Amino acid sequence: MIAVIKQGVPAAQVDNLVNWLETQNLTVHRSEGVYTTILGLVGDTTQVDIELLQNLEIVESVTRISEPFKSANRKFHPEDTVVDVSGVKIGGGHFAIVAGPCSVESEEQIIAVAKQVQASGATLLRGGAFKPRTSPYDFQGLAADGLKLLKEAKRETGMPIVTEIMNANHLPLFEDVDLVQVGARNMQNFDLLKELGHIRKPILLKRGLANTMKEWLMSAEYIMAGGNEQIILCERGIRTYETYTRNTLDLSAVPMLHELTHLPVMVDPSHASGINWMVKPMAMAAAAAGADGLMIEVHNDPKRALCDGAQSLTPEQFDDVAKRVRQIREAIKE
Amino acid sequence: MIAVIKQGVPAAQVDNLVNWLETQNLTVHRSEGVYTTILGLVGDTTQVDIELLQNLEIVESVTRISEPFKSANRKFHPEDTVVDVSGVKIGGGHFAIVAGPCSVESEEQIIAVAKQVQASGATLLRGGAFKPRTSPYDFQGLAADGLKLLKEAKRETGMPIVTEIMNANHLPLFEDVDLVQVGARNMQNFDLLKELGHIRKPILLKRGLANTMKEWLMSAEYIMAGGNEQIILCERGIRTYETYTRNTLDLSAVPMLHELTHLPVMVDPSHASGINWMVKPMAMAAAAAGADGLMIEVHNDPKRALCDGAQSLTPEQFDDVAKRVRQIREAIKE
Amino acid sequence: MIAVIKQGVPAAQVDNLVNWLETQNLTVHRSEGVYTTILGLVGDTTQVDIELLQNLEIVESVTRISEPFKSANRKFHPEDTVVDVSGVKIGGGHFAIVAGPCSVESEEQIIAVAKQVQASGATLLRGGAFKPRTSPYDFQGLAADGLKLLKEAKRETGMPIVTEIMNANHLPLFEDVDLVQVGARNMQNFDLLKELGHIRKPILLKRGLANTMKEWLMSAEYIMAGGNEQIILCERGIRTYETYTRNTLDLSAVPMLHELTHLPVMVDPSHASGINWMVKPMAMAAAAAGADGLMIEVHNDPKRALCDGAQSLTPEQFDDVAKRVRQIREAIKE
Amino acid sequence: MIAVIKQGVPAAQVDNLVNWLETQNLTVHRSEGVYTTILGLVGDTTQVDIELLQNLEIVESVTRISEPFKSANRKFHPEDTVVDVSGVKIGGGHFAIVAGPCSVESEEQIIAVAKQVQASGATLLRGGAFKPRTSPYDFQGLAADGLKLLKEAKRETGMPIVTEIMNANHLPLFEDVDLVQVGARNMQNFDLLKELGHIRKPILLKRGLANTMKEWLMSAEYIMAGGNEQIILCERGIRTYETYTRNTLDLSAVPMLHELTHLPVMVDPSHASGINWMVKPMAMAAAAAGADGLMIEVHNDPKRALCDGAQSLTPEQFDDVAKRVRQIREAIKE
Repeated sequence: MIAVIKQGVPAAQVDNLVNWLETQNLTVHRSEGVYTTILGLVGDTTQVDIELLQNLEIVESVTRISEPFKSANRKFHPEDTVVDVSGVKIGGGHFAIVAGPCSVESEEQIIAVAKQVQASGATLLRGGAFKPRTSPYDFQGLAADGLKLLKEAKRETGMPIVTEIMNANHLPLFEDVDLVQVGARNMQNFDLLKELGHIRKPILLKRGLANTMKEWLMSAEYIMAGGNEQIILCERGIRTYETYTRNTLDLSAVPMLHELTHLPVMVDPSHASGINWMVKPMAMAAAAAGADGLMIEVHNDPKRALCDGAQSLTPEQFDDVAKRVRQIREAIKE
Repeated sequence: MIAVIKQGVPAAQVDNLVNWLETQNLTVHRSEGVYTTILGLVGDTTQVDIELLQNLEIVESVTRISEPFKSANRKFHPEDTVVDVSGVKIGGGHFAIVAGPCSVESEEQIIAVAKQVQASGATLLRGGAFKPRTSPYDFQGLAADGLKLLKEAKRETGMPIVTEIMNANHLPLFEDVDLVQVGARNMQNFDLLKELGHIRKPILLKRGLANTMKEWLMSAEYIMAGGNEQIILCERGIRTYETYTRNTLDLSAVPMLHELTHLPVMVDPSHASGINWMVKPMAMAAAAAGADGLMIEVHNDPKRALCDGAQSLTPEQFDDVAKRVRQIREAIKE
Repeated sequence: MIAVIKQGVPAAQVDNLVNWLETQNLTVHRSEGVYTTILGLVGDTTQVDIELLQNLEIVESVTRISEPFKSANRKFHPEDTVVDVSGVKIGGGHFAIVAGPCSVESEEQIIAVAKQVQASGATLLRGGAFKPRTSPYDFQGLAADGLKLLKEAKRETGMPIVTEIMNANHLPLFEDVDLVQVGARNMQNFDLLKELGHIRKPILLKRGLANTMKEWLMSAEYIMAGGNEQIILCERGIRTYETYTRNTLDLSAVPMLHELTHLPVMVDPSHASGINWMVKPMAMAAAAAGADGLMIEVHNDPKRALCDGAQSLTPEQFDDVAKRVRQIREAIKE
Repeated sequence: MIAVIKQGVPAAQVDNLVNWLETQNLTVHRSEGVYTTILGLVGDTTQVDIELLQNLEIVESVTRISEPFKSANRKFHPEDTVVDVSGVKIGGGHFAIVAGPCSVESEEQIIAVAKQVQASGATLLRGGAFKPRTSPYDFQGLAADGLKLLKEAKRETGMPIVTEIMNANHLPLFEDVDLVQVGARNMQNFDLLKELGHIRKPILLKRGLANTMKEWLMSAEYIMAGGNEQIILCERGIRTYETYTRNTLDLSAVPMLHELTHLPVMVDPSHASGINWMVKPMAMAAAAAGADGLMIEVHNDPKRALCDGAQSLTPEQFDDVAKRVRQIREAIKE
């Protein structure tokens, strides 16, 4: 971390600052120029509150050289983390597709979809039981009953299951869930993240609606600080000024995160666009960008198509996407 | 709500859609043009899932005419809501300033600040006990001990107290808190909002980091749907591409919200800018834009100024701001 | 276009509005509900000023059903436009890679790069002669001399050339340029667009820094309104709050534009990221998303690598990218 | 400017970089830490291409300490610039209101509005002659005829006139214009800015649709680099994800720019919101934030109100706003 001192600040005030920084277990390199004094702070700067420093009367500017995240940082952990979800590996060359309906609706539905997506190559089953909805008047999910149906489907197919948690109080209900999802709206629900740091299950951490990659990695850091290092990041589109698409899928996050962190990176092309026919091209693009996995919504009931699945694929469409994604994985192989 | 049907869709398919909409207690006005069929949906459209409808094969586009929020909507409740915080009124012409330190640090600190801001005209005391921090390595607040110190200050000065809740499990600790704050990062923590709908205390609902006014009002709607209609909205800056300021304070939200909703609207100029010297002009601007109140950080300890208060005013600065805000309130009086 | 009238507006005022709309050659369908009156406007609504209508005292809201662009609209022109750049076809299944240095620097440089990228499969040569720079103190390009060198390279290799225009007064210098590029910062330089509508050369229209797809298509419409319908759109990253990447490459624009317009869509992965090692994954992702072409910066001088080519590939890197892109084109073939 | 070198880079490579930097007339302070080497660059760093440096293989990160703008920088020019528009002063304590219609329509209209706004306290007259419109099908302004009518109004009232230029070729027509406006869409039309650097008239430089304050000041720098230092900056709302308002008026830009630059800062509350009833509160808020002036649209023809003035005030409304703004100027006086 580098702090630049304002022009004309008396040496005694700089001394005070240096002393205070040293009490925080930092070594301070002081370099006096003609116009500027520069302090180089060495040590564990992740613990330094940069805004606080930035706002001191005598400080012109502060810049982090090392990132504020430690456990998630590739610099301190160069090899890829491989997350093991009850036998399905993700990251470090292992690619996985999570598929299933937006919401779990019935035993018949979830088992049928599970079998179909499994046949097409999906290795993890998703399904919403607790649903975060913008409006209190919208369907909020089957809750505990939805979780039971997911477990049924797991028993039938052997696929590990993935579902979203909205409240740490529900953790006892998640005992048989294999991969616990934190949704975009809870990415900075720090109390929930802390609790998830103490469980021994992998976490799928979706990017917040309008969060930077740095904030996202800091949220991973919250979980890792508690001891749980099995985290998969999942890009799902960010908020921009564009209105033709629901969100802007930020695929440049895939190579950038691979540079910054050792954690695996998945992409959810279904939620990003909100439109059925955009899922296929964006799933292929995500694979081409180097994603470690995909999360895709699939629905199986053509008769109810009227009121379902804005962004869901049919099993046939999913089968086509899965096939092409495998070809793209070949094209990008080093 | 208006749905436009795609060109060339057979009448039988439109019939199906109309029938399905009517099962949802909507009256459907059908208007056939040469090129287009338009359906006007009348009834309680807040319950219609607009994305679902939009994504039907046969639908070209869907537009809401009425807003998706009901309880918060000024159309159905034309008079201003006046929120009463243990005797301090906000909204409908009543203006209030909430002031106090970012974090509660000690009994001495909180009582001293409370007395000073009260003398300058603040009528509510703020102080953080549970702190949402982006980094797990930053100070997380005094928690329950902080709440105790706030109550001390309330006893000493008689000022009602305002503090942030991060977890519904902490509600028992909030018994003596007069105004419960929901922070920006929890604006869409729907489980927390539902719990707050069942308590009988006013809520200060901050705008999320990058949330639209519509989403913000939908979050108010979550609380109101539970029966708690005492809500104050608080603008605190939104995320934009600009980096010279920490956030972009959206003051146009003040008149716009006054048009859309009957709920009072406050502004927090301290968090928006993150810089001490921007608080004064932005506090005055917020008052001039018609805000029903201000929330301002004040710190009292010049000796510790080294590591405190990036965005906090001194009591003297606060006194000046409070005075000028009163003059501005005169200038805008109708 | 649909206009919803406010509740309680007297019929006479609605009559006035209807009459005024009819003087604008629109047919108005009037539908009276219990609470709302809805006007459906049929005819050439591209000429209606929607903001003006929206702000009338008696109007609740206005919605376009048809897009405000006409010539660029796929609805009125369902087949893909194939742009012919001096024999190189783009769009409608024809894929092309434009490659070359950011700036033209010398005859030696531009000819060497041209030959190398041609050998790897590029069919168009790019090179900046007039450079738009944020700072007046940065290098502004070789101008007319740069254009001469580009023409040299064209003579040597037979590759058609692409370069940016910043000022309609320079048009005489562009006589031998095969594809005229409009840069992001000039996307809404309407006077320039009008001039380009009157020339008989294809235009490469880059998306503005923070422009919506609708505005982008309206800018294409400006050129087309003048009679020049040979336009290629080029996505190059949009401005968001994220700071780890210079821009956020919006690949969802590719399938969305293919739905909205018949014009070909290229992607420039070099400018979006600003980082050399992100070009490869993003180029592959763009191809997978269905782009009709790519524009990639390539530099050939390893000795000058010190002060060059933040975002440029070496010819070897470009060769690898071009090969993989061809494989990806196979994987997405219908 | 500070450059941090990557860990483990051989000293010889750092030597090369230092030598290269010194050839650019920079003095380089080298500071070797245990893990990091830091280079402090002293001299005229406005000429250093920061992206280029940032992308060198051996460089970890680069940070500007001094801003990239020089002529506009308050550090090198601490006193406020006072711009003199044919006798009307703006900046350094001088406050001015520019008022007038969006478009000049007729002699009768422009003279009537001019007299009315002058009576209410406006000291400069605005009116659009060349209009930048998103759609080629919208009204494009009266052009040269509009300029003639503006001059008529100036002769009648003595008010200096302000109007927008879209093309440097039109400069001869602007001879009698007192303040030349550069619109948001041309803020980075660098060729136009260069031309305006060579004229001897004050320039009103509007902020681009989605431009940072730094880019805005760099555009001012383009004009100043040509020798024209009479520039007024004008905030007019920026693009965000919010859709209830047309733009988000960034009033925090006012105090921030007063810190960064000595140039005067005006605010245009009419274009930001696009809604008549938001102009008054936002005009008052802008004055309270410390703006040096306001630019407000006023229209005078109630009979044509049907198709006019989405965002224009009536002369009566303007009179009320102007009065209250004067009171607010009193309240903020130091």
